[in-house]
Amino acid sequence: MRIAIAGLGNIGAEVARQCLDKAELYAQRAEGPITVTDVSARDRGKDRGFDLRKHGIRFWKDPTKMASEADVDIVVELIGGADGVALRVVEVAIARGVHVVTANKALLAKHGMRLSRLAEARGVTLAFEAAVAGGIPVVELLRQGLAANVVTQIVGILNGTTNFILSQMLGTGCSYDAALKQAQQRGYAEADPTLDVNGMDAAAKLAILSALAFGVPVDLSGMPVEGIERITALDIQRASQLGLTVKLLCIARNTAQGLERWVQPCLVPADSVIGKVVGATNAVAITGEPLGTLVIQGQGAGAGPTASAVIADIIDLATGRRLPAFGKLASELRAVPELVPGDRKGEYYLRLQAVDQPRVLGDVLSLFGMQGISMGPTDQPDVVPDEHGAVPVFLTTRRTQEAAVQRALIMIRELTTVKGEPCLMRIERNV
Amino acid sequence: MRIAIAGLGNIGAEVARQCLDKAELYAQRAEGPITVTDVSARDRGKDRGFDLRKHGIRFWKDPTKMASEADVDIVVELIGGADGVALRVVEVAIARGVHVVTANKALLAKHGMRLSRLAEARGVTLAFEAAVAGGIPVVELLRQGLAANVVTQIVGILNGTTNFILSQMLGTGCSYDAALKQAQQRGYAEADPTLDVNGMDAAAKLAILSALAFGVPVDLSGMPVEGIERITALDIQRASQLGLTVKLLCIARNTAQGLERWVQPCLVPADSVIGKVVGATNAVAITGEPLGTLVIQGQGAGAGPTASAVIADIIDLATGRRLPAFGKLASELRAVPELVPGDRKGEYYLRLQAVDQPRVLGDVLSLFGMQGISMGPTDQPDVVPDEHGAVPVFLTTRRTQEAAVQRALIMIRELTTVKGEPCLMRIERNV
Repeated sequence: MRIAIAGLGNIGAEVARQCLDKAELYAQRAEGPITVTDVSARDRGKDRGFDLRKHGIRFWKDPTKMASEADVDIVVELIGGADGVALRVVEVAIARGVHVVTANKALLAKHGMRLSRLAEARGVTLAFEAAVAGGIPVVELLRQGLAANVVTQIVGILNGTTNFILSQMLGTGCSYDAALKQAQQRGYAEADPTLDVNGMDAAAKLAILSALAFGVPVDLSGMPVEGIERITALDIQRASQLGLTVKLLCIARNTAQGLERWVQPCLVPADSVIGKVVGATNAVAITGEPLGTLVIQGQGAGAGPTASAVIADIIDLATGRRLPAFGKLASELRAVPELVPGDRKGEYYLRLQAVDQPRVLGDVLSLFGMQGISMGPTDQPDVVPDEHGAVPVFLTTRRTQEAAVQRALIMIRELTTVKGEPCLMRIERNV
Repeated sequence: MRIAIAGLGNIGAEVARQCLDKAELYAQRAEGPITVTDVSARDRGKDRGFDLRKHGIRFWKDPTKMASEADVDIVVELIGGADGVALRVVEVAIARGVHVVTANKALLAKHGMRLSRLAEARGVTLAFEAAVAGGIPVVELLRQGLAANVVTQIVGILNGTTNFILSQMLGTGCSYDAALKQAQQRGYAEADPTLDVNGMDAAAKLAILSALAFGVPVDLSGMPVEGIERITALDIQRASQLGLTVKLLCIARNTAQGLERWVQPCLVPADSVIGKVVGATNAVAITGEPLGTLVIQGQGAGAGPTASAVIADIIDLATGRRLPAFGKLASELRAVPELVPGDRKGEYYLRLQAVDQPRVLGDVLSLFGMQGISMGPTDQPDVVPDEHGAVPVFLTTRRTQEAAVQRALIMIRELTTVKGEPCLMRIERNV
């Protein structure tokens, strides 16, 4: 197999180094040599730990030109970004009848349907194990290892940056901003962490997993997505008191009312397998029939884990194990009714900042009561008021419909005693 | 694909039911129908939730006759046992050029090398995803998803029965015998639990995983294997005080001195991923380069999870994804130097029953000192002596060579103040 790598950042360089270092091993496993023959990057001269000339690797300044001209079997796209050069490279390679391996979840979330149809029409493979959960081979699991199952639920921690931030806040009691800074210092968060902390990176991965598990088209539109920016040390602490912990969950599950999908921070039991996943780790819990639940966790990002997934795809291609991108043909993916968020049922957690008046908890509880919502534990801790004279009030509901909670929330926001935006989170005990 | 199932116990019946219930789904995933055409069992008439006659399934009293005569593509062996009928069924099917899918770890541990060579010679596949860790697709992971990696370590909890027993002892403070009884009541342990609690079931699985991960022949001989029968509530409790927990670990790792492999109860950090695996669960942590560590956990036994793995093998066969049994040809598996247990280095935990004399701890410590072993925390709890007037003494060593610990132990056993057999366990922090 002759390989062209578009993009020699951390991951691209690691893929090339591994293919050079482990050439003999890979040749045995792929039933023939895997040779990186062409690469493309911005900077030719940068030290990446291997010598292009010594290994006879052709360098291209223009990745699109490489994708359209290099004499290769596979183009590996590691440029990144939902559009632009990455998209052109993939389109050009497929159009030529060359297989594509990519780690680009944003590209797949936006153009995955069209690209997989193009690949099917050209009889080539679009492989993307590395795009979801880095080194965790969850794409393979869903297409092969769990092929005997009807998947009923996927619960994922699909973004390592946010899980690191939440773990730091829990472990040290620090603020969101301080934890984000630590994530950046350790290289877990980009200088611009927006796509990580706002949930969109995780949502792209969930859209891909949903296609694999439920046979629906890859589609982000309409999926409720929230990030962790609103989470404070107070939420983390209160969750602990309740035996819970805050996680940015990605959920896709079959319900009687339709497919339920969302990415939102929520409270999960601290002693559940998902609750115990700490640090910059990814985890996916897949529940299927007849399997039961399988949980797999590992590093969701980083050069080594991602290269492991990219090369696994290359070896699969080399040995002729070619499955349709999403386990079935893109043309066979079918949209299904989706559960309206307001129809979700569950327990909810609410934190308010309220002016310290003896009456406020009663007022808020009355508004919930008017919606017919039964309440769980509440707490008004005895703390020093903030600059607006407000103190936190914590509430939880029993199992209820989300629409009722939202209606109560509209009225709660209008109470003059409530300051700022309340923080509402689901409590997910079934993870 | 035409399937014959030999053995209609819990698992065999579940495989048949799933193939009937999910016929359409499996036909799509297998690119053609999967049809159970023949079955063999002791009792034809037993109610298994499906009607043989209605589905036109042929019943055979003699599984060997079925394996040699039924007009099928795959024989699924679910009879069990390392020899006897199960072995004959597999041999006969392979000899005829029929693929075999089995969940039989004991058979593979004993005859896996010969059977896989036979299969290769006849050009058929011997598939056994269900033989290791039930519903966890660890065979597929090692052969495909992690194909880009040099595996350096496997840490497994490969027996759910023992993990349930140890979890119960920790959770309730009960004795080994009481926890075993609970395991039997819940159906996690057989009436004769010997092969589970003595570690041999786990050892068979580790031998199979070692072949897949390290390319060594499947071979149990010489592998140190210990069960959990000696573990008492005292050990569990003392481990907790040290922030550790007792697990029956299966370890295979590359060391500079050779391949280290063993199945033994040991103390692991209570807050490690492996330490947090509770109940009748299996877990496998695979460390590879460039991947890092991947941990996968799920149900290691039971009809549903095992059927999931059996059918995944069938679908793989149907779609032509055929890899050599152990990722490489059986003839290419090579024995490597194995680490002598005495050469293992690590920390150790020791529990003695000693006659309550002020001198005993000093005597024991002196014997360790004579071997040049530095000691960690020790404890002589203030408890009521047992019927021999003995009380427990707990010791730990710093990192040392196991041979030195064993030499000290020989002399400790000879102290007249020490009663009964001391309980020695490794402390494994790197899991």
